[in-house]
Amino acid sequence: MTTTAVINIASLVTNDPSLGNGTPLGLIRDAAVVIEGDRVVWTGESSKAPATDNAVDAGGRAVIPGFVDSHSHLLFAGDRTEEFNARMSGVPYTAGGIRTTVAATRAASDDELAANVSRYLAEAVRQGTTTFETKSGYGLTVEDEARALRIAADHTEEVTYLGAHVVPPDYADDPAGYVALVTGPMLDACAPYARWIDVFCEKGAFDGDQARAILTAGRAKGLHPRIHANQLGHGPGVQLAVELDAASADHCTHLTDADVDALGQGDTVATLLPGAEFSTRATWPDARRILDAGATVALSTDCNPGSSFTSSMPFCIALAVRDMGMTPDEALWSATAGGAAALRRTDIGGITPGTRADLVLLDAPSHVHLAYRPGVPLVSAVWQRGQRVL
Amino acid sequence: MTTTAVINIASLVTNDPSLGNGTPLGLIRDAAVVIEGDRVVWTGESSKAPATDNAVDAGGRAVIPGFVDSHSHLLFAGDRTEEFNARMSGVPYTAGGIRTTVAATRAASDDELAANVSRYLAEAVRQGTTTFETKSGYGLTVEDEARALRIAADHTEEVTYLGAHVVPPDYADDPAGYVALVTGPMLDACAPYARWIDVFCEKGAFDGDQARAILTAGRAKGLHPRIHANQLGHGPGVQLAVELDAASADHCTHLTDADVDALGQGDTVATLLPGAEFSTRATWPDARRILDAGATVALSTDCNPGSSFTSSMPFCIALAVRDMGMTPDEALWSATAGGAAALRRTDIGGITPGTRADLVLLDAPSHVHLAYRPGVPLVSAVWQRGQRVL
Ligand SMILES: [Zn+2]
Ligand SMILES: [Zn+2]
Repeated sequence: MTTTAVINIASLVTNDPSLGNGTPLGLIRDAAVVIEGDRVVWTGESSKAPATDNAVDAGGRAVIPGFVDSHSHLLFAGDRTEEFNARMSGVPYTAGGIRTTVAATRAASDDELAANVSRYLAEAVRQGTTTFETKSGYGLTVEDEARALRIAADHTEEVTYLGAHVVPPDYADDPAGYVALVTGPMLDACAPYARWIDVFCEKGAFDGDQARAILTAGRAKGLHPRIHANQLGHGPGVQLAVELDAASADHCTHLTDADVDALGQGDTVATLLPGAEFSTRATWPDARRILDAGATVALSTDCNPGSSFTSSMPFCIALAVRDMGMTPDEALWSATAGGAAALRRTDIGGITPGTRADLVLLDAPSHVHLAYRPGVPLVSAVWQRGQRVL
Repeated sequence: MTTTAVINIASLVTNDPSLGNGTPLGLIRDAAVVIEGDRVVWTGESSKAPATDNAVDAGGRAVIPGFVDSHSHLLFAGDRTEEFNARMSGVPYTAGGIRTTVAATRAASDDELAANVSRYLAEAVRQGTTTFETKSGYGLTVEDEARALRIAADHTEEVTYLGAHVVPPDYADDPAGYVALVTGPMLDACAPYARWIDVFCEKGAFDGDQARAILTAGRAKGLHPRIHANQLGHGPGVQLAVELDAASADHCTHLTDADVDALGQGDTVATLLPGAEFSTRATWPDARRILDAGATVALSTDCNPGSSFTSSMPFCIALAVRDMGMTPDEALWSATAGGAAALRRTDIGGITPGTRADLVLLDAPSHVHLAYRPGVPLVSAVWQRGQRVL
């Protein structure tokens, strides 16, 4: 197999704490990475790099692992520009909401949905994302949810069934009937395409008992749980996530001390989604408090047309540093290794021999520039599974 | 001269309030723009566009005027990654500050300074900026200030002499001596290269009397005033700016009612620089209050390595909407026509017959997406003086 060396890297983030300066990022200065096929086979000081077939000169810039965006909602049609504009302009707007997206998504053809997910995926790659999870949740019928997941599975291996996004209008008087659908025929139709099952556990959506029933049913069909938890207020979501050993509790904006303790003691990752707080002018999640409790934190975009229409992991890093009490190092780790942990993956999120060759070359000497230079597109080259894709 | 039509524009921002729906943005739907040489010669509905030599299909996306970034500090060498990292990580850091940049800038060759400004300018163009102002202020000797301005003048017509950025260490005991230098030999050496004179009027830098002396001396040499005012606390800067008919009072973060009234009554533009508040975790300026007083507001990056190392006007728009009370329409206007007003220019900042052909094609159906999709690089094509540069 052909080998390629990326040489002359001023600063390489490996996320291997046994390397470099012994911090979680495992920084190596004046480094090189050797790729063979779709894998990293060697990392170390540039001067000691083995001979390879090809070499790419990083020009004294930084290389980081590709971002792992472990939470997005890309199976949708339409957008909600007018609703956003009205909200940000202080103008009343009675249409809109998730129902608008559900209607547009149901009305869209398969090709339209596939084109949308392709487009947002390509946009994410240009910003350094090499792995992304995505969810259903705008179909809310057996056919529409299964269709969304079938299309998603053509684009990523991290597919999440979120039939329990919201109770659709046709079940407004019969939420138990909708839970029966989600845990019955809809689950049967969706399980073949998905790895994960998710539920929006929040006042106005699904309560703790409903969430437990849904996740338990999913687990019986081989889907592993993750939960939208404690975004809009306090609730049972986070502790339920830990109890069920969910891979991730996502949002974690409103936490009690007991919630934080649970995260610190369990294996559930706290996935923070600052794009949502940014776009809805909400209170920031307190990453510092969660980290100080010993929990693992991931950062992700929550990319969706209603509450967080960003696909930019660098933007999430800048917000996490500015407003959530994370250091630049912690934010970078959470956007790479943290995302991998939230997907229970060890083959991505780092750059060490054996990991997937998902690398991002920044147009900057250090990963710190992702927070230091907010909004500036700094992604200069991207390798995904060893292939140069940007 | 060759004519080029940009056709099939879903939404065209002209900033001509007599057009379109009668709002300040002068929006035209299903629009076309005709460029001849470096000028716009026609705008209107796509179906009525005159015949041209060439046509570019906007593909149902949005076109806006190029951004006018009326406040940046790009004549510097080095960066301050470690200082930023320490500040954001809560770690003490005694080196750093503006003196670090002054030392690196003085030590740099002309070629290095020119390469830096070229690099950041190219980066800004990729993000849709077609006009930018930039300042000296990291030389602080006669030779180093004049050199910076000479190099700046090779890259932009909007050059600002900011010898009065800070009192340098060698004059720590003799600030009056430094003011005499700035208003004497340094001014003489710098005036040939600059259009503007600026002063950092703030506690710890220059007080109101010093600022008045500096700006008055500059005006006598044909330089028009602008002021760094009221960034870190209350002070005389804003009212002095209005009194001297400065083109712009920049920052405007801490304003009394009298300051706001003065801005509402004068012709001085309030230039807000949210990148600085973002990067220093400071209080946001209240754009709403300033707009409601009838003042003109510009948005700009303040791009500099110490307090705001962003070159991204879209990022500034997103912050202005999220945190400063601006609507998406107001923020777009302030980043284009507002910047032009802060430079007392009428040939840029809009798209109407006779203006410079500075156009940005967005990968979005509406300018609202600049706030709706924060952090996402949405600039798809850029024309500067009629030339396609991206
Ligand atoms: Zn979500
Ligand atoms: Zn400034």
